[in-house]
Amino acid sequence: MIQETIVTTLSAAGIVHIAPMGVHVDGVDFSILPFKPSTTLNNLLETGAAVVNCCDDVRIFAGCLTGRRDWALKSAERIKGFYLAASLAHTELKLQCVEDDELRPRLICKAVHTVNHSPFQGFNRAQFAVLEAAILISRLDRLPWDKIQSELDYLGIGLNKCAGDRELEAWAWLMEVIEQRRPGIRLL
Amino acid sequence: MIQETIVTTLSAAGIVHIAPMGVHVDGVDFSILPFKPSTTLNNLLETGAAVVNCCDDVRIFAGCLTGRRDWALKSAERIKGFYLAASLAHTELKLQCVEDDELRPRLICKAVHTVNHSPFQGFNRAQFAVLEAAILISRLDRLPWDKIQSELDYLGIGLNKCAGDRELEAWAWLMEVIEQRRPGIRLL
Repeated sequence: MIQETIVTTLSAAGIVHIAPMGVHVDGVDFSILPFKPSTTLNNLLETGAAVVNCCDDVRIFAGCLTGRRDWALKSAERIKGFYLAASLAHTELKLQCVEDDELRPRLICKAVHTVNHSPFQGFNRAQFAVLEAAILISRLDRLPWDKIQSELDYLGIGLNKCAGDRELEAWAWLMEVIEQRRPGIRLL
Repeated sequence: MIQETIVTTLSAAGIVHIAPMGVHVDGVDFSILPFKPSTTLNNLLETGAAVVNCCDDVRIFAGCLTGRRDWALKSAERIKGFYLAASLAHTELKLQCVEDDELRPRLICKAVHTVNHSPFQGFNRAQFAVLEAAILISRLDRLPWDKIQSELDYLGIGLNKCAGDRELEAWAWLMEVIEQRRPGIRLL
Protein backbone atom coordinates (compact mmCIF):
# COMPACT_ATOMS: atom_id res chain seq x y z
CA MET A 1 0.00 0.00 0.00
CA ILE A 2 1.43 3.36 -1.00
CA GLN A 3 0.64 6.41 1.13
CA GLU A 4 1.32 9.92 -0.16
CA THR A 5 3.15 11.71 2.64
CA ILE A 6 5.79 14.35 3.31
CA VAL A 7 9.16 12.92 4.34
CA THR A 8 11.41 15.11 6.48
CA THR A 9 15.09 14.24 6.89
CA LEU A 10 18.16 15.89 8.34
CA SER A 11 21.64 16.04 6.80
CA ALA A 12 24.71 15.27 8.90
CA ALA A 13 25.27 19.05 8.89
CA GLY A 14 21.82 19.56 10.43
CA ILE A 15 19.93 20.93 7.43
CA VAL A 16 16.28 19.83 7.18
CA HIS A 17 14.89 18.59 3.87
CA ILE A 18 11.13 18.39 3.19
CA ALA A 19 9.96 16.20 0.30
CA PRO A 20 6.55 14.83 -0.79
CA MET A 21 6.92 11.07 -1.29
CA GLY A 22 4.88 7.95 -1.87
CA VAL A 23 5.86 5.60 0.94
CA HIS A 24 5.20 1.83 0.91
CA VAL A 25 3.62 0.93 4.24
CA ASP A 26 3.05 -2.52 5.73
CA GLY A 27 2.38 -2.27 9.46
CA VAL A 28 5.57 -0.91 11.06
CA ASP A 29 7.60 -1.53 7.89
CA PHE A 30 8.07 1.53 5.72
CA SER A 31 9.96 1.56 2.41
CA ILE A 32 11.07 4.80 0.82
CA LEU A 33 12.16 4.63 -2.85
CA PRO A 34 13.69 7.96 -3.89
CA PHE A 35 14.83 8.52 -7.48
CA LYS A 36 18.55 9.35 -7.66
CA PRO A 37 19.84 11.98 -7.17
CA SER A 38 17.89 12.66 -3.96
CA THR A 39 18.56 14.74 -0.86
CA THR A 40 16.21 12.45 1.08
CA LEU A 41 18.38 9.48 0.05
CA ASN A 42 21.63 11.24 1.02
CA ASN A 43 20.21 12.35 4.37
CA LEU A 44 18.83 8.91 5.24
CA LEU A 45 22.20 7.34 4.44
CA GLU A 46 23.97 9.98 6.56
CA THR A 47 21.71 9.93 9.62
CA GLY A 48 19.78 6.66 9.39
CA ALA A 49 16.51 8.38 10.29
CA ALA A 50 13.47 10.04 8.74
CA VAL A 51 10.00 11.25 9.64
CA VAL A 52 6.87 10.39 7.65
CA ASN A 53 4.41 13.27 8.03
CA CYS A 54 0.73 12.55 7.37
CA CYS A 55 -0.63 15.96 6.42
CA ASP A 56 -3.93 17.10 4.96
CA ASP A 57 -2.60 20.60 4.25
CA VAL A 58 -2.06 20.14 0.51
CA ARG A 59 -0.22 23.46 0.30
CA ILE A 60 2.84 21.58 1.60
CA PHE A 61 2.69 19.08 -1.29
CA ALA A 62 2.10 21.82 -3.87
CA GLY A 63 4.54 24.17 -2.15
CA CYS A 64 7.47 21.74 -2.22
CA LEU A 65 6.91 21.30 -5.98
CA THR A 66 6.81 25.06 -6.58
CA GLY A 67 9.74 26.30 -4.52
CA ARG A 68 7.91 26.90 -1.21
CA ARG A 69 9.73 24.79 1.35
CA ASP A 70 9.54 26.97 4.45
CA TRP A 71 7.06 25.06 6.65
CA ALA A 72 6.95 25.12 10.45
CA LEU A 73 8.79 22.23 12.12
CA LYS A 74 8.95 20.66 15.57
CA SER A 75 11.58 18.35 17.07
CA ALA A 76 11.01 14.62 16.71
CA GLU A 77 10.78 12.63 19.94
CA ARG A 78 12.71 9.37 19.43
CA ILE A 79 15.05 10.16 16.54
CA LYS A 80 17.19 13.13 15.58
CA GLY A 81 14.98 15.01 13.19
CA PHE A 82 11.90 17.18 12.78
CA TYR A 83 8.25 16.74 11.94
CA LEU A 84 5.90 19.19 10.26
CA ALA A 85 3.86 21.24 12.72
CA ALA A 86 0.89 20.87 10.31
CA SER A 87 0.93 17.04 10.46
CA LEU A 88 -2.23 15.31 11.62
CA ALA A 89 0.07 12.46 12.61
CA HIS A 90 3.74 11.63 12.14
CA THR A 91 5.82 8.47 12.34
CA GLU A 92 9.53 8.42 13.21
CA LEU A 93 11.60 5.89 11.24
CA LYS A 94 14.98 4.25 11.63
CA LEU A 95 16.76 2.90 8.55
CA GLN A 96 17.15 -0.90 8.65
CA CYS A 97 18.79 -1.68 5.34
CA VAL A 98 19.27 -0.42 1.80
CA GLU A 99 18.63 -2.30 -1.44
CA ASP A 100 20.77 -0.24 -3.75
CA ASP A 101 19.73 0.43 -7.34
CA GLU A 102 21.12 2.65 -10.08
CA LEU A 103 17.85 4.49 -10.51
CA ARG A 104 15.77 3.98 -7.40
CA PRO A 105 17.20 2.34 -4.27
CA ARG A 106 14.86 0.96 -1.63
CA LEU A 107 15.37 2.29 1.90
CA ILE A 108 13.79 -0.19 4.28
CA CYS A 109 12.85 1.46 7.56
CA LYS A 110 11.11 0.52 10.79
CA ALA A 111 8.62 2.76 12.59
CA VAL A 112 9.86 3.47 16.10
CA HIS A 113 7.25 6.03 17.20
CA THR A 114 3.93 7.43 15.96
CA VAL A 115 2.17 10.51 17.33
CA ASN A 116 -1.49 11.25 16.59
CA HIS A 117 -1.73 15.05 16.75
CA SER A 118 -5.11 15.99 15.26
CA PRO A 119 -8.24 14.19 14.06
CA PHE A 120 -8.63 13.18 10.43
CA GLN A 121 -11.38 15.37 8.92
CA GLY A 122 -12.66 12.90 6.32
CA PHE A 123 -11.89 12.66 2.63
CA ASN A 124 -11.85 15.87 0.62
CA ARG A 125 -12.08 15.66 -3.16
CA ALA A 126 -10.26 18.98 -3.58
CA GLN A 127 -7.29 17.71 -1.58
CA PHE A 128 -7.05 14.69 -3.85
CA ALA A 129 -7.39 16.90 -6.92
CA VAL A 130 -4.39 18.94 -5.74
CA LEU A 131 -2.43 15.78 -5.00
CA GLU A 132 -3.18 14.28 -8.43
CA ALA A 133 -2.32 17.58 -10.14
CA ALA A 134 0.99 17.64 -8.23
CA ILE A 135 1.74 14.12 -9.48
CA LEU A 136 0.86 15.22 -13.04
CA ILE A 137 3.30 18.14 -12.76
CA SER A 138 6.08 15.79 -11.75
CA ARG A 139 5.47 14.01 -15.11
CA LEU A 140 4.90 16.94 -17.45
CA ASP A 141 7.75 15.88 -19.71
CA ARG A 142 6.43 12.35 -20.16
CA LEU A 143 2.74 12.99 -20.88
CA PRO A 144 1.00 14.52 -23.92
CA TRP A 145 -0.57 17.91 -23.22
CA ASP A 146 -4.07 16.97 -24.29
CA LYS A 147 -4.02 14.19 -21.68
CA ILE A 148 -2.73 16.61 -19.03
CA GLN A 149 -5.46 19.11 -19.91
CA SER A 150 -8.25 16.52 -19.82
CA GLU A 151 -7.07 15.21 -16.43
CA LEU A 152 -6.91 18.76 -15.04
CA ASP A 153 -10.43 19.43 -16.34
CA TYR A 154 -11.66 16.29 -14.58
CA LEU A 155 -9.84 17.12 -11.32
CA GLY A 156 -11.20 20.67 -11.46
CA ILE A 157 -14.74 19.34 -10.88
CA GLY A 158 -13.96 17.92 -7.42
CA LEU A 159 -11.76 20.91 -6.66
CA ASN A 160 -14.38 23.53 -7.36
CA LYS A 161 -17.08 21.61 -5.54
CA CYS A 162 -15.20 20.79 -2.33
CA ALA A 163 -12.22 23.13 -1.80
CA GLY A 164 -11.46 25.34 1.16
CA ASP A 165 -8.97 28.21 1.03
CA ARG A 166 -5.89 26.01 1.48
CA GLU A 167 -6.85 23.78 -1.45
CA LEU A 168 -7.54 26.77 -3.74
CA GLU A 169 -4.18 28.32 -2.85
CA ALA A 170 -2.31 25.06 -3.50
CA TRP A 171 -4.15 24.54 -6.82
CA ALA A 172 -3.26 28.10 -7.93
CA TRP A 173 0.45 27.44 -7.25
CA LEU A 174 0.32 24.29 -9.39
CA MET A 175 -1.59 25.97 -12.23
CA GLU A 176 1.07 28.71 -12.39
CA VAL A 177 3.64 26.01 -13.14
CA ILE A 178 1.34 24.36 -15.68
CA GLU A 179 0.85 27.65 -17.51
CA GLN A 180 4.58 28.40 -17.56
CA ARG A 181 5.42 25.00 -19.02
CA ARG A 182 2.56 24.69 -21.51
CA PRO A 183 3.92 24.30 -25.07
CA GLY A 184 3.57 27.40 -27.23
CA ILE A 185 3.96 29.62 -24.17
CA ARG A 186 7.41 31.16 -23.98
CA LEU A 187 8.38 33.60 -21.29
CA LEU A 188 10.34 36.41 -22.98
CA MET B 1 -15.42 22.98 2.41
CA ILE B 2 -17.08 19.63 1.76
CA GLN B 3 -15.74 16.54 3.53
CA GLU B 4 -16.76 13.06 2.37
CA THR B 5 -17.78 11.20 5.52
CA ILE B 6 -20.12 8.52 6.82
CA VAL B 7 -23.08 9.92 8.76
CA THR B 8 -24.67 7.67 11.39
CA THR B 9 -28.11 8.51 12.79
CA LEU B 10 -30.66 6.81 14.99
CA SER B 11 -34.43 6.68 14.46
CA ALA B 12 -36.82 7.38 17.32
CA ALA B 13 -37.36 3.61 17.38
CA GLY B 14 -33.62 3.07 17.92
CA ILE B 15 -32.62 1.78 14.47
CA VAL B 16 -29.18 2.91 13.27
CA HIS B 17 -28.73 4.23 9.73
CA ILE B 18 -25.30 4.48 8.08
CA ALA B 19 -24.95 6.74 5.02
CA PRO B 20 -21.99 8.15 3.08
CA MET B 21 -22.46 11.91 2.79
CA GLY B 22 -20.64 15.04 1.75
CA VAL B 23 -20.82 17.34 4.78
CA HIS B 24 -20.19 21.09 4.66
CA VAL B 25 -17.75 21.94 7.46
CA ASP B 26 -16.80 25.35 8.81
CA GLY B 27 -15.14 25.02 12.22
CA VAL B 28 -17.77 23.61 14.59
CA ASP B 29 -20.60 24.30 12.11
CA PHE B 30 -21.64 21.28 10.07
CA SER B 31 -24.36 21.31 7.40
CA ILE B 32 -25.88 18.11 6.08
CA LEU B 33 -27.93 18.33 2.87
CA PRO B 34 -29.69 15.03 2.19
CA PHE B 35 -31.76 14.56 -0.97
CA LYS B 36 -35.40 13.70 -0.15
CA PRO B 37 -36.50 11.04 0.61
CA SER B 38 -33.76 10.31 3.16
CA THR B 39 -33.56 8.17 6.27
CA THR B 40 -30.75 10.42 7.56
CA LEU B 41 -33.13 13.40 7.22
CA ASN B 42 -35.99 11.61 9.00
CA ASN B 43 -33.71 10.43 11.80
CA LEU B 44 -32.14 13.85 12.36
CA LEU B 45 -35.60 15.41 12.55
CA GLU B 46 -36.74 12.73 15.00
CA THR B 47 -33.74 12.71 17.35
CA GLY B 48 -31.91 16.00 16.66
CA ALA B 49 -28.53 14.28 16.60
CA ALA B 50 -26.02 12.67 14.23
CA VAL B 51 -22.44 11.45 14.14
CA VAL B 52 -19.99 12.38 11.40
CA ASN B 53 -17.51 9.51 11.02
CA CYS B 54 -14.15 10.26 9.41
CA CYS B 55 -13.09 6.89 8.01
CA ASP B 56 -10.33 5.81 5.68
CA ASP B 57 -11.81 2.32 5.27
CA VAL B 58 -13.34 2.85 1.84
CA ARG B 59 -15.18 -0.46 2.06
CA ILE B 60 -17.76 1.36 4.19
CA PHE B 61 -18.41 3.93 1.44
CA ALA B 62 -18.56 1.25 -1.27
CA GLY B 63 -20.44 -1.15 1.00
CA CYS B 64 -23.27 1.26 1.79
CA LEU B 65 -23.78 1.79 -1.98
CA THR B 66 -23.85 -1.94 -2.67
CA GLY B 67 -26.09 -3.24 0.09
CA ARG B 68 -23.42 -3.92 2.75
CA ARG B 69 -24.46 -1.87 5.75
CA ASP B 70 -23.43 -4.13 8.64
CA TRP B 71 -20.45 -2.26 10.12
CA ALA B 72 -19.31 -2.40 13.75
CA LEU B 73 -20.61 0.44 15.92
CA LYS B 74 -19.82 1.92 19.32
CA SER B 75 -21.93 4.18 21.54
CA ALA B 76 -21.48 7.92 21.12
CA GLU B 77 -20.39 9.82 24.22
CA ARG B 78 -22.38 13.08 24.33
CA ILE B 79 -25.42 12.35 22.18
CA LYS B 80 -27.76 9.40 21.77
CA GLY B 81 -26.27 7.58 18.81
CA PHE B 82 -23.43 5.44 17.54
CA TYR B 83 -20.14 5.93 15.73
CA LEU B 84 -18.35 3.51 13.42
CA ALA B 85 -15.70 1.43 15.17
CA ALA B 86 -13.51 1.89 12.06
CA SER B 87 -13.50 5.71 12.32
CA LEU B 88 -10.14 7.42 12.62
CA ALA B 89 -12.09 10.24 14.26
CA HIS B 90 -15.73 11.06 14.83
CA THR B 91 -17.70 14.20 15.66
CA GLU B 92 -21.02 14.20 17.50
CA LEU B 93 -23.54 16.76 16.24
CA LYS B 94 -26.68 18.38 17.56
CA LEU B 95 -29.23 19.78 15.12
CA GLN B 96 -29.57 23.58 15.42
CA CYS B 97 -32.06 24.42 12.68
CA VAL B 98 -33.50 23.26 9.39
CA GLU B 99 -33.74 25.21 6.14
CA ASP B 100 -36.45 23.19 4.44
CA ASP B 101 -36.43 22.60 0.69
CA GLU B 102 -38.53 20.45 -1.63
CA LEU B 103 -35.48 18.64 -2.96
CA ARG B 104 -32.62 19.08 -0.53
CA PRO B 105 -33.15 20.63 2.91
CA ARG B 106 -30.17 21.96 4.85
CA LEU B 107 -29.71 20.55 8.36
CA ILE B 108 -27.54 22.99 10.29
CA CYS B 109 -25.75 21.27 13.15
CA LYS B 110 -23.19 22.12 15.79
CA ALA B 111 -20.29 19.88 16.80
CA VAL B 112 -20.53 19.08 20.51
CA HIS B 113 -17.73 16.52 20.80
CA THR B 114 -14.87 15.16 18.66
CA VAL B 115 -12.82 12.06 19.43
CA ASN B 116 -9.49 11.35 17.70
CA HIS B 117 -9.21 7.55 17.70
CA SER B 118 -6.37 6.66 15.33
CA PRO B 119 -3.70 8.49 13.37
CA PHE B 120 -4.30 9.59 9.78
CA GLN B 121 -2.08 7.44 7.54
CA GLY B 122 -1.55 9.96 4.72
CA PHE B 123 -3.30 10.29 1.39
CA ASN B 124 -3.88 7.14 -0.62
CA ARG B 125 -4.70 7.42 -4.34
CA ALA B 126 -6.58 4.12 -4.32
CA GLN B 127 -8.90 5.37 -1.58
CA PHE B 128 -9.58 8.45 -3.69
CA ALA B 129 -10.25 6.24 -6.73
CA VAL B 130 -12.82 4.21 -4.78
CA LEU B 131 -14.50 7.34 -3.49
CA GLU B 132 -14.73 8.91 -6.96
CA ALA B 133 -16.02 5.64 -8.42
CA ALA B 134 -18.68 5.53 -5.69
CA ILE B 135 -19.73 9.07 -6.60
CA LEU B 136 -19.88 8.05 -10.29
CA ILE B 137 -22.14 5.12 -9.41
CA SER B 138 -24.55 7.42 -7.63
CA ARG B 139 -24.86 9.29 -10.98
CA LEU B 140 -24.98 6.42 -13.47
CA ASP B 141 -28.35 7.54 -14.82
CA ARG B 142 -27.17 11.06 -15.52
CA LEU B 143 -23.81 10.45 -17.26
CA PRO B 144 -22.97 9.01 -20.69
CA TRP B 145 -21.30 5.60 -20.52
CA ASP B 146 -18.20 6.57 -22.48
CA LYS B 147 -17.53 9.30 -19.91
CA ILE B 148 -18.05 6.82 -17.05
CA GLN B 149 -15.67 4.35 -18.70
CA SER B 150 -12.96 6.93 -19.31
CA GLU B 151 -13.17 8.16 -15.70
CA LEU B 152 -12.95 4.58 -14.40
CA ASP B 153 -9.91 3.96 -16.63
CA TYR B 154 -8.25 7.06 -15.20
CA LEU B 155 -9.10 6.14 -11.60
CA GLY B 156 -7.83 2.60 -12.17
CA ILE B 157 -4.28 3.93 -12.56
CA GLY B 158 -4.05 5.26 -8.99
CA LEU B 159 -5.99 2.26 -7.71
CA ASN B 160 -3.65 -0.34 -9.16
CA LYS B 161 -0.55 1.55 -8.10
CA CYS B 162 -1.47 2.31 -4.48
CA ALA B 163 -4.22 -0.05 -3.21
CA GLY B 164 -4.14 -2.33 -0.21
CA ASP B 165 -6.59 -5.20 0.29
CA ARG B 166 -9.42 -3.01 1.61
CA GLU B 167 -9.28 -0.73 -1.44
CA LEU B 168 -9.26 -3.66 -3.89
CA GLU B 169 -12.25 -5.25 -2.15
CA ALA B 170 -14.22 -1.98 -2.20
CA TRP B 171 -13.36 -1.39 -5.88
CA ALA B 172 -14.54 -4.92 -6.78
CA TRP B 173 -17.92 -4.28 -5.09
CA LEU B 174 -18.37 -1.10 -7.11
CA MET B 175 -17.32 -2.70 -10.41
CA GLU B 176 -19.93 -5.44 -9.90
CA VAL B 177 -22.60 -2.73 -9.86
CA ILE B 178 -21.09 -1.00 -12.89
CA GLU B 179 -21.13 -4.25 -14.88
CA GLN B 180 -24.73 -5.03 -13.90
CA ARG B 181 -25.92 -1.61 -14.99
CA ARG B 182 -23.85 -1.24 -18.16
CA PRO B 183 -26.15 -0.76 -21.20
CA GLY B 184 -26.41 -3.82 -23.41
CA ILE B 185 -26.00 -6.08 -20.40
CA ARG B 186 -29.29 -7.60 -19.30
CA LEU B 187 -29.50 -10.08 -16.47
CA LEU B 188 -31.90 -12.84 -17.56
